[in-house]
Amino acid sequence: MPPTLPRYAYLGPAGTFTEAALRQIASPDEATYLPQEDVVAALDAVADGSADFAVVAIENSVEGSVSAVLDTLAIGVPLVIMREMLVTVSFSVASRSAIPLTDVRRLAAHPHAWAQCRGWIRENMPNASHVPSASNTTPAREMASAGSDIGFDAALVPPAAVAAYGLTELAANAADNGSAVTRFVLIGHPGEVPAPTGADRTSLMVHLPDNEAGALLTMLEQFATRGVNLSRIESRPIGDELGRYSFSIDAEGHLSEPRMGEALMGLRRVCPVVRFLGSYPRADAAANDVRSNTNADAYADARGWLDQLRSGGAG
Amino acid sequence: MPPTLPRYAYLGPAGTFTEAALRQIASPDEATYLPQEDVVAALDAVADGSADFAVVAIENSVEGSVSAVLDTLAIGVPLVIMREMLVTVSFSVASRSAIPLTDVRRLAAHPHAWAQCRGWIRENMPNASHVPSASNTTPAREMASAGSDIGFDAALVPPAAVAAYGLTELAANAADNGSAVTRFVLIGHPGEVPAPTGADRTSLMVHLPDNEAGALLTMLEQFATRGVNLSRIESRPIGDELGRYSFSIDAEGHLSEPRMGEALMGLRRVCPVVRFLGSYPRADAAANDVRSNTNADAYADARGWLDQLRSGGAG
Amino acid sequence: MPPTLPRYAYLGPAGTFTEAALRQIASPDEATYLPQEDVVAALDAVADGSADFAVVAIENSVEGSVSAVLDTLAIGVPLVIMREMLVTVSFSVASRSAIPLTDVRRLAAHPHAWAQCRGWIRENMPNASHVPSASNTTPAREMASAGSDIGFDAALVPPAAVAAYGLTELAANAADNGSAVTRFVLIGHPGEVPAPTGADRTSLMVHLPDNEAGALLTMLEQFATRGVNLSRIESRPIGDELGRYSFSIDAEGHLSEPRMGEALMGLRRVCPVVRFLGSYPRADAAANDVRSNTNADAYADARGWLDQLRSGGAG
Amino acid sequence: MPPTLPRYAYLGPAGTFTEAALRQIASPDEATYLPQEDVVAALDAVADGSADFAVVAIENSVEGSVSAVLDTLAIGVPLVIMREMLVTVSFSVASRSAIPLTDVRRLAAHPHAWAQCRGWIRENMPNASHVPSASNTTPAREMASAGSDIGFDAALVPPAAVAAYGLTELAANAADNGSAVTRFVLIGHPGEVPAPTGADRTSLMVHLPDNEAGALLTMLEQFATRGVNLSRIESRPIGDELGRYSFSIDAEGHLSEPRMGEALMGLRRVCPVVRFLGSYPRADAAANDVRSNTNADAYADARGWLDQLRSGGAG
Repeated sequence: MPPTLPRYAYLGPAGTFTEAALRQIASPDEATYLPQEDVVAALDAVADGSADFAVVAIENSVEGSVSAVLDTLAIGVPLVIMREMLVTVSFSVASRSAIPLTDVRRLAAHPHAWAQCRGWIRENMPNASHVPSASNTTPAREMASAGSDIGFDAALVPPAAVAAYGLTELAANAADNGSAVTRFVLIGHPGEVPAPTGADRTSLMVHLPDNEAGALLTMLEQFATRGVNLSRIESRPIGDELGRYSFSIDAEGHLSEPRMGEALMGLRRVCPVVRFLGSYPRADAAANDVRSNTNADAYADARGWLDQLRSGGAG
Repeated sequence: MPPTLPRYAYLGPAGTFTEAALRQIASPDEATYLPQEDVVAALDAVADGSADFAVVAIENSVEGSVSAVLDTLAIGVPLVIMREMLVTVSFSVASRSAIPLTDVRRLAAHPHAWAQCRGWIRENMPNASHVPSASNTTPAREMASAGSDIGFDAALVPPAAVAAYGLTELAANAADNGSAVTRFVLIGHPGEVPAPTGADRTSLMVHLPDNEAGALLTMLEQFATRGVNLSRIESRPIGDELGRYSFSIDAEGHLSEPRMGEALMGLRRVCPVVRFLGSYPRADAAANDVRSNTNADAYADARGWLDQLRSGGAG
Repeated sequence: MPPTLPRYAYLGPAGTFTEAALRQIASPDEATYLPQEDVVAALDAVADGSADFAVVAIENSVEGSVSAVLDTLAIGVPLVIMREMLVTVSFSVASRSAIPLTDVRRLAAHPHAWAQCRGWIRENMPNASHVPSASNTTPAREMASAGSDIGFDAALVPPAAVAAYGLTELAANAADNGSAVTRFVLIGHPGEVPAPTGADRTSLMVHLPDNEAGALLTMLEQFATRGVNLSRIESRPIGDELGRYSFSIDAEGHLSEPRMGEALMGLRRVCPVVRFLGSYPRADAAANDVRSNTNADAYADARGWLDQLRSGGAG
Repeated sequence: MPPTLPRYAYLGPAGTFTEAALRQIASPDEATYLPQEDVVAALDAVADGSADFAVVAIENSVEGSVSAVLDTLAIGVPLVIMREMLVTVSFSVASRSAIPLTDVRRLAAHPHAWAQCRGWIRENMPNASHVPSASNTTPAREMASAGSDIGFDAALVPPAAVAAYGLTELAANAADNGSAVTRFVLIGHPGEVPAPTGADRTSLMVHLPDNEAGALLTMLEQFATRGVNLSRIESRPIGDELGRYSFSIDAEGHLSEPRMGEALMGLRRVCPVVRFLGSYPRADAAANDVRSNTNADAYADARGWLDQLRSGGAG
């Protein structure tokens, strides 16, 4: 009996940017791909055991709702981020057969894709008007199906969708600002934390005791006092009657580092809720910027000094 | 010649939640409604003068991309928020004719709508599978059109879409958590700032000089030192090579109040970029929580005392 | 051979307030009293081994120079505070024989004693003018000596000096504000730290990296982030060419407590110099005010939670 | 009738370091010198109108009690610091007639003077033992008087006392660390504040609402947020039943500067008591270190920007 392949839930169908992120970590030969209709379904699949992992976008809403991802991670079964992947977001213009770009009159595109390529379209496809599609891959699937009247001439699709659906690529790299990059993450159950690499991120969800400016400062000082930088912070309404907020935070560093450990202990003490959502390598491998007085050596020196004082030494 | 009506750009078409927000401030009799395909187009219409105002969602992505709104306000022609409106988000199940909910096998819904109603659907429409739609109103339009094969039996649509498209309502208030509320805002050109009401919000976009934790604290202390609470903070990658971040902030209070004025001056001094995006009444009319040592009286007393010292008084 | 008695250096001679402080911890039967001419000499006696302990005033300059004490503790041989004692500071009016207060024309007094009793003297000894004396006990010694012309009729002396020098007390409790209390401390070599009592103080001397306001805040945040209150802070010029300052600090709590340990480690990391000057019981036995989120239980909970996260638990 | 000369109260008698400080601002020809027995008397003389100004030491207790100065300024009639003067503190060894240093067996000295010169004495006057004197000038006066038995052979006195009392100088510059410098200040009634020079100090006395570490930080953030550095901070027990503290503070900058004005307004709002004790030029004329984002230009720019926003501009 063959070994069981790991199962990955992700925003499908074939050809999405999310699938491109998944391919960075496991080829279809090494894994069971479980396409889902939306990101919440992907996370739920891990929570209920029907998948081992999920791949979802965590920054910029190129695909799926980042808000929904954050809100889902904040409650229910504990899930953690294990890895992050970067995917370059550029679109291909695809159709059933080769036609000049200027002949395209109806261009199918998800509204976000349209928004990201508007300038490019105006310049290269001056006769095209927008036919909104439900997702980036919906028009690809429709072109691949037998139907004769699909309501559009061409579509903006993720590059991988061209081959996945047997389409003709009229243009590549349609985008207004060269190319954008989106961050995806691999989600799984808590367990062994990925080893620190020196270029790590730690994701958290915390609540504040009240909504005074002082409470936010008190929380952030837990990081600053230990020299932990933040790469993202986002307040989100908790939805209770008190108008309180939770904060979704990415901090630079790893759970195993002393400065991060002390900061987490501080949060645990002063915040009513702290949820650890994973320590994992940054996809860009950019080493964390750690001041010399907050690195592991500085902590080890301080710890040794304190131990010496406590045993009656002169310090 | 009749007076020109004010022109409002908004995420259309008829029947959207955004239109419901627009109706709170101007009926179709009093205004020219200019439906747009997406929120960026709505904002651009104001920027280029083809509309006087825009209405867009600013929190939770029930319709349109909040990220796109924030990013658009952050650059280009200066636009400001002039008012905010709350819209209760619940969906109606609509079809061309009355059928039992349990007969619905293909339910059209925008993925976000589907996600918000998943539990309700499982319970009330156990036989329905999801047919993704491009927007909340796309399936309503399709049902209202002549086409015979629309590919679904019923759809989740905003309540207002039922009448707008002459549909039959199979169920109302489809939602998992009773009802959610979404915040919309009215956008216009800078000009007269709405008068303070005691329950106001001020929206800002600021950049930090660097991404150290200390820089974030320095910025937030500009608020805390003056007793200004924040109701929302969200970091957004600037996209430059330095990995810097901008922050989208809602602060409690009004531009005309001394504590807010002093905080803004502080930001202007310590942050490389500060963009004022409006002071406007909170839709929930919840009075701002102002401590007695940061209210206008405390500032007036302190100013009087300082003036006395400067003129040689004993203080 | 009898056991060696512990040797205490202190600001003498007999009858000083400092001696009164010393008597609180060891009677002359139990200890060898080594009176010194000034506080620096008392500290030096411990440093060079000619005494085991020193007793010196640490707050308010009723006797000896507090500045000299702090400056001496800050450099040279490491010494620590082991205990603090409170002494009520009120003066007796003493003379060689009983005379009416109103007959006193020349009243010997150390300038500080005179300053503290000025109002009382004006009211009770309207005919007295000030004859400055070198210390509180100098005039007592002079009256006890054989000399006929001592240049004054009576003197303000510590209460204990009346009996010590065989004088006549014309009045007791001479003071302007009822009675003041001065803090004295017992100084010794580092060694076993006194056990925590829940009402402890920790004394420190720290340098800042530079004299910017931000550096002072960074230092103080090391205390505040861990919920450690300060009961005294005093900046003192270091005397180097950079105009830098050291800070003499009394913090509420004990070296063995986790919040104090973490604060000390933070200081060690961010300050160029940190000198631990002792953890010892407060003489007033006023329990330290510790918020529930910074006490030992809160730290133990946070530590347990962190350990659980680090071993892969859900946290 | 000749114009009335300004009257200066100071710690006398002739020959003190305080008199040397006074000579820096007014020669005996230009002013009436009013020597006082102690610093409190000097300040009281101004308060009750018997003097126009007082000169007192404000740092290091070379003469008079700095604590008494600070405590006196903190209460009662409002007085302010108008100027500061630096005096080099070194001592002369003086006697009635020329004798070798090594012949001196009894050396009169105020205990502080003795402490400052101890090493020098050990090396240069190995046979001298200490005869404590009540002040730096007491032994000079005694040597100048007719008495035959003054109880000592020579004395440590301020350099000016040698000529003032017609003494013989056996040695000059007796001191352990080359020379120390002490800060004196000129005290007067509030009135016209000295013009800013760019190298100014502002002295304050403030109370905190409670003794939590957070309260101290809140107070200090009023300075830091506006970029105002502190050159001295000293906590002093208020003496009330709550164990509260007042803080004596020297801040870098002038009352008329916008950053100082804003900081003072902040203190006034958040502290129960703030007493302004003067803005005056630093004696060392060291220009204040002002960051470019907190100087007057930065404030003017921020104010202009705020005014523009408030008048409806785009900002």
